[in-house]
Amino acid sequence: MSGKPDRTGEFELIAKFFAPLAKGEPGALGLKDDAAYLKPRAGHDITTDAVIAGVHFLADDPPDTIAQKALRVNLSDLAAKGAKARAYLLTAALPTAIDDEWLQSFAAGLKQDQKRFGVTLIGGDTTKTPGPLTLNIVAIGEVPYGKMLTRAGAKPGDDIWVTGTIGDGALGLKARRGTLPGLSDAHRKAAERRYLTPEPRPTVGKGLVGIANACLDVSDGLVADLGHIAKTSNVAIRIRERDVPLSAPAKAAVACGALAHAELLTGGDDYELAFAAPQSARAKVQSLSRDTRVPLTRIGEVAKGPTGVTVLAPGDAAIPYGRGGYVHF
Amino acid sequence: MSGKPDRTGEFELIAKFFAPLAKGEPGALGLKDDAAYLKPRAGHDITTDAVIAGVHFLADDPPDTIAQKALRVNLSDLAAKGAKARAYLLTAALPTAIDDEWLQSFAAGLKQDQKRFGVTLIGGDTTKTPGPLTLNIVAIGEVPYGKMLTRAGAKPGDDIWVTGTIGDGALGLKARRGTLPGLSDAHRKAAERRYLTPEPRPTVGKGLVGIANACLDVSDGLVADLGHIAKTSNVAIRIRERDVPLSAPAKAAVACGALAHAELLTGGDDYELAFAAPQSARAKVQSLSRDTRVPLTRIGEVAKGPTGVTVLAPGDAAIPYGRGGYVHF
Repeated sequence: MSGKPDRTGEFELIAKFFAPLAKGEPGALGLKDDAAYLKPRAGHDITTDAVIAGVHFLADDPPDTIAQKALRVNLSDLAAKGAKARAYLLTAALPTAIDDEWLQSFAAGLKQDQKRFGVTLIGGDTTKTPGPLTLNIVAIGEVPYGKMLTRAGAKPGDDIWVTGTIGDGALGLKARRGTLPGLSDAHRKAAERRYLTPEPRPTVGKGLVGIANACLDVSDGLVADLGHIAKTSNVAIRIRERDVPLSAPAKAAVACGALAHAELLTGGDDYELAFAAPQSARAKVQSLSRDTRVPLTRIGEVAKGPTGVTVLAPGDAAIPYGRGGYVHF
Repeated sequence: MSGKPDRTGEFELIAKFFAPLAKGEPGALGLKDDAAYLKPRAGHDITTDAVIAGVHFLADDPPDTIAQKALRVNLSDLAAKGAKARAYLLTAALPTAIDDEWLQSFAAGLKQDQKRFGVTLIGGDTTKTPGPLTLNIVAIGEVPYGKMLTRAGAKPGDDIWVTGTIGDGALGLKARRGTLPGLSDAHRKAAERRYLTPEPRPTVGKGLVGIANACLDVSDGLVADLGHIAKTSNVAIRIRERDVPLSAPAKAAVACGALAHAELLTGGDDYELAFAAPQSARAKVQSLSRDTRVPLTRIGEVAKGPTGVTVLAPGDAAIPYGRGGYVHF
C-alpha cells in the first residue's frame, strides 16, 4: 500500500496495543503476518459477519465502550446464527487526534470482552484518516454443518419469542443525548449502559440450533426486524404490544411520557434475539431460558396471509405502526 | 445500528449493486442475512486477510480499478500464504457524492475479478460517511492443514526468488501523478495499469506450498519486505541489484534518469511474491514457473549472520540502501 509515511507508526501501534490481544490463538501468528488461519472443528462450518461503524457512535463515547460495542454488535450477529464466536479481525481508520491514552482504553475494552466472550483478535489493519473514526470488525464463528439459523424458515403456527428486554437501545441513545429529562439518575445510567455496551446472547443462540425455525438479532428495531423474518420466510407475524418485555427504565420512560411505547418497538440497537419456534418446542425454550439465565418471552405468533408484521393492542385491534395498521417491507 | 436515515437506501443499494455478486455461493444467503457461512473442504484451514484502504487511492482513480485493487491486494496476501481464495466480505463507507454511475462501475470491476479469480462476495456492509471513501475487504481462503506459508522459516543456504517484475507499483504511481515526463505513452500506460490493477499470483502461491520455506507479497517495497522475512526467520538476506527483474517501462525510466534503481526496489505496491526456497528445489521452482506461465527469478540467497538485507552491486560490494550499507528492521 502507498501509505508509507504512517508505516512505522502503524507497526509500533499494532505491536503495542493489538498484538497482546492475539495471544493464545496460534492462527493469529502474533499479528506479524499478512493473514491468519483458523482450523474449524470437524463437522463445523465457519461463519463470518462484518460491520462498518463509521457513523454509529457519538463522538464523546468512551473508547473502551466504542470498542466493545463494535465487537458485540458482531458477536450478536453470530449469536443469532447459532454460531460460537472464535475470533475476529479489526480494521481501524484512526483520526490523527487519537492519542495513546485513547488507544489504551480502546484496547482494554477489547481485552475485557475477549475474555468474557471467548474470542481472540487474529488480524486486520490500522491506518490514519483525515475523516472520522471508522471501525470494521469481522467476527468469525463455528456452527454445526448446515445448521446455521437464518431469517428464512418461520412457519405458520410458530411462536415468536424475544430475549431480554426491548427498546433499551433507543432509550439509551436518548438518555445519552440528554433528551430524557424525566428519568431518575439510576434509570438513565442503566439505559446509557445498554446503549454503550449491548448484551449479545451467544448462549441462547447456540441453544436455539435445532429448536428455532428462524432467528435474528434486533438491530433495526423489533418491528422492522420481525418484518425481515416475515419477508424472508413469506409469512405474516402478529405480536401483542403489551407482551413485549420492557426494562424498568423503559417502563418508567413510557409512564412519564418521555417516550412512546411505539418508539421502543421500532428504535433498534437492542441486540436481543427474536426468533420463531414451533409450539411443540415451548418446554425446550423455557428450559433454555433457565439454563442460560436469560429471560425468554413469547410475544406473538406466525400466521399465513400477506407478508408483514401486525402489532396488536389488547382486544387484538391492530395498532397503526408505520403506515396503515401494520408495516410492510 | 443507529444509522437509521440511510437504512432503506442501504438495502436497495446492496440489492442492486452487490447481491448479484453473491450468486452461486450458497453460504452468502443472497446478502440478505447478517452473516455468511463457508464449508471448508476436508483437510483445509480457513485463512483470512483484511485491509483497510481509506487513504491509498488517488481521488480520481476509476471506480472499477479502485474496487479491483482493493480486492487484489487481499488476494495477493492469500496467494502469499499458499491459500486458494474462496470468498470475500466488503464493507464500504461511501461519501455522499458517490452516485449510481460510480457504483455501477465499482460493482462491474468486482464482477470481472470475481470471475477471473474464482471468488464470491459473501457479506459485509455499506454506510454513508462525511469522510473519504473507505473500503475494507476481508478475503477468505483455504490452505491445507498446517501448510500455510509464513514469513518465518527461511534457512541459510536458501535461494531468494521473486515473481514477475519489481518496482512497477512505484513507477505506476509516479506515472499516474504525472511526474514521469521522459516516458513513452505506451510505457506510461503500462506502468499506470500496474499501479491501478496489480496482478496477484495465486497459482504460484498455491504451487509453493511444500516448496518454499518462507513467502510474502511485496507491498512495502522489496527490500523492506525481505527485511520482514529476515527478521521473522532470524537470518541475513543478500540480493544482487542487477538480478532483480524489471519491466520494460521500469528499465526505460532508469535509463532516462526519471527514477533511481533504488526507488524501484524500495517503492512498494508491487504485489509480486518474494520467497525463500532450498537450492534442492530449483528444478521444482522452474517447473512451477513453466506451469503457471509466471516468470520466477532468483535474485539472492539467505545466509547466517546479523538479521537484515544487503543489496549487492556487481563485484558484491554492498550498495547503501537506507542507512549504512544495508537496511536493518
